Amino acid sequence: MDNKAIDTDILLEESLDKILEFLEEKRYFQARDELLKYNAVDIAELLEEVTEKLEIEMTIILFRLLPKDISVEVFSELPSDDQVEIVNGITDKEINFIVQEMDFDDKIDILEELPANVVDKILEKTPKNERRLINTFLNYPDTCAGSLMTPDYISLQKDWTVGRALEYIKEVGMDAETVYTCYVKDSGRKLIGIVSLSTLVITDDETRIKDIMRTDYVWENVYEDQEEVSEDFKKYGFLALPVVDNEHRLVGIITVDDILDVMEEEATEDIERMNGVIDFENSDKGYLDKSVWQHALNRLPWLLILMVAYIFTGMIVSSFEGRLSEIICLVSYMPMLMGTGGNTGSQAATLIIRGLATDEVDTSDVLKILWKEIRIGILIGIILSTFNFARVCLLDGQEPIIALTVCAAMLLIVIIGKVLGSMVPLMVKKLNLDPALIANPAISSVSDMVALSIYFAMAMVFLGL
Amino acid sequence: MDNKAIDTDILLEESLDKILEFLEEKRYFQARDELLKYNAVDIAELLEEVTEKLEIEMTIILFRLLPKDISVEVFSELPSDDQVEIVNGITDKEINFIVQEMDFDDKIDILEELPANVVDKILEKTPKNERRLINTFLNYPDTCAGSLMTPDYISLQKDWTVGRALEYIKEVGMDAETVYTCYVKDSGRKLIGIVSLSTLVITDDETRIKDIMRTDYVWENVYEDQEEVSEDFKKYGFLALPVVDNEHRLVGIITVDDILDVMEEEATEDIERMNGVIDFENSDKGYLDKSVWQHALNRLPWLLILMVAYIFTGMIVSSFEGRLSEIICLVSYMPMLMGTGGNTGSQAATLIIRGLATDEVDTSDVLKILWKEIRIGILIGIILSTFNFARVCLLDGQEPIIALTVCAAMLLIVIIGKVLGSMVPLMVKKLNLDPALIANPAISSVSDMVALSIYFAMAMVFLGL
Repeated sequence: MDNKAIDTDILLEESLDKILEFLEEKRYFQARDELLKYNAVDIAELLEEVTEKLEIEMTIILFRLLPKDISVEVFSELPSDDQVEIVNGITDKEINFIVQEMDFDDKIDILEELPANVVDKILEKTPKNERRLINTFLNYPDTCAGSLMTPDYISLQKDWTVGRALEYIKEVGMDAETVYTCYVKDSGRKLIGIVSLSTLVITDDETRIKDIMRTDYVWENVYEDQEEVSEDFKKYGFLALPVVDNEHRLVGIITVDDILDVMEEEATEDIERMNGVIDFENSDKGYLDKSVWQHALNRLPWLLILMVAYIFTGMIVSSFEGRLSEIICLVSYMPMLMGTGGNTGSQAATLIIRGLATDEVDTSDVLKILWKEIRIGILIGIILSTFNFARVCLLDGQEPIIALTVCAAMLLIVIIGKVLGSMVPLMVKKLNLDPALIANPAISSVSDMVALSIYFAMAMVFLGL
Repeated sequence: MDNKAIDTDILLEESLDKILEFLEEKRYFQARDELLKYNAVDIAELLEEVTEKLEIEMTIILFRLLPKDISVEVFSELPSDDQVEIVNGITDKEINFIVQEMDFDDKIDILEELPANVVDKILEKTPKNERRLINTFLNYPDTCAGSLMTPDYISLQKDWTVGRALEYIKEVGMDAETVYTCYVKDSGRKLIGIVSLSTLVITDDETRIKDIMRTDYVWENVYEDQEEVSEDFKKYGFLALPVVDNEHRLVGIITVDDILDVMEEEATEDIERMNGVIDFENSDKGYLDKSVWQHALNRLPWLLILMVAYIFTGMIVSSFEGRLSEIICLVSYMPMLMGTGGNTGSQAATLIIRGLATDEVDTSDVLKILWKEIRIGILIGIILSTFNFARVCLLDGQEPIIALTVCAAMLLIVIIGKVLGSMVPLMVKKLNLDPALIANPAISSVSDMVALSIYFAMAMVFLGL
């Protein structure tokens, strides 16, 4: 889309050039002033580029020149390598300030990524009671609601007036992750209602909180899987959701900005699994940050399983070898039939797996899906068979009976591929497993076996082999 | 996660049973009261179930019994089939109310989905100036920022005091899509700054807006692609972004709740494309709502392209036929070598395509990626070759020279598969095309050809064929 007249990316690039120039001429303050035209996210991006283009020392110098309140935000946005270097390169007093001012959930995220010695250095500066809280948070499993939440929410008393609540928000609001939803707890710390800031702002000052709080709110259990949590955000369109323990005591809140990352992570996991890559570490490391060993480990399981599957495919071919060598031209159509079977199956599997993930289809739709895929298979099978009949007869100059064998096999292979591809994910889902784990490699290797069996069966029928 | 003591889903199911019972006994008001325990999203879900389990007439009765303000929200959440039935089943006066009260962007979404005659019926009830606005919005391309935005934002004057601004928000806030970010325009309707509601709430009443507004805000052009827009939401973590035209005039805002849907749509599109399904209609219809023809049309292009590719694969096999029939046992390893080449290539392609989509890798990383994939390929190739050497010699009882041929081919096929799979997406990206479009089917059919060529070459080297 070229309609974007001025683009932030272009502005950023121009500023980067200026900053690099300033730094080379040791005009540090001018470089800093250029940085300060931007928000914390963009400043972090620029500093990252500085580290890459020049050296980390330059980044540390610039970082120390930033106003303190901005430096905290920028620190949270930097990649963990740079964070480590900065923690090692600045004074204890500076670390102290950053640690105290950081948002709680950013702190948790950062502590999860940093090496142990740096974590110790940071925890040292943390007050004792907060340290205990941090340790609790670090203990929640990596993919549950507890690992996404922050304890920095605003809680109101049900007997307060709106005026008092607004005063309270003015006082403590700066430290909260969000002030847009406030939570009402009873004396036992149980969650009893929520009030949005917009309701407070448009309501009369004398009204009591209990009269305007909503009780039909949606909540999450602290051990709920993050995928379910992000489903709820999508379903209800909220900006934040409260997280409660088994006694319905409010333990934290999750804000929508963290959910955007979860959705991307979950989509990546599904895409990788569907194509036979299993991330055993379940890490959020990028492609380039994973070692060769890690990459090989993630990809080997499926390849090895397929090796075993192909022993059976090999056996099917072997049992037919003697007869194949009589009509050797049949061999040249094997790749096409296997490939088409695999692709046609994985097309269907992809649509069903994704449909299950986005709640568009459900295991109870099995008959509707079966009937649909059979018709799609027949339609596609007929078109591909017609194409192939012409090819085998005209282009390859084979006997019509050979063409008939290939085309009959093609039709059956496509139909069975569509049926297998659509039914297997539904069965896996029914067993309460992740359908994405029955990856496309599995579908296509099963299709290979089926394709060859059908092909040889057709050869027996039509060619009397 | 079974730790969730009480789950909304379970509550909803219990309520559904109660409602169905009430309806069968014609106790409509009790059914309605049961519904009213929930928020609009859940009520819509329950009504959908009622339509499915009983009939649409029941849903219409219940819908008409809902308090008016709730019925508007519920209407926006219903599937479009049910919306059509409801529009046809209620009075003009009721339609009128719903149309007037609905959020602007919900109205646009609904009008895009409904059949023309129902759209006319709804537009009839809309005031003339709003009708013009609706038509403008309906005209933005389906996947650009303009199609996601709403004109219901709050704009403040730069010379207002905070107190006046809060008064203004109290007055007009109810109709705005979000009051959490307010926008400041100059006299020419150009956007000059933003102020968040939280800043207003914690700032002294006498302060002027121009002194607290932020000017380092991020904005989107109205024609920006929705994928880029959602990248920005993820990058900056904002709840809403302003949309401007080429003269930087504010035309609307986009809120984060709509971005969650965009992210899901974009992930679905990528997943489908990667597996050879191209959605030509670019519709947000679900699997079950698409016709057999539409499904076949979306899947045929890749299958036909592959048909053509397999003509060449067939030619490679054909040219080797004579020699193959001498050592026919080589045929039985063809499926395994082709399959492994395809899978190993699509694993690499998947990681790179996803890495490009999430900005984890970039075309400038080409050498790093190449070097990594070569090493991964060697590692995996050696492991798979060792496995196969044992299999061919021990399990199949073949000569060691046959095993050597198969294993040498395997090693080369894996390495080349990894290199092809990782490099092709980078090249496609460099050409400014969507790497997901060079789907796994393409990678695996090219790998098939390469695999067979390597296999036959190894056979010539080791077996002198």
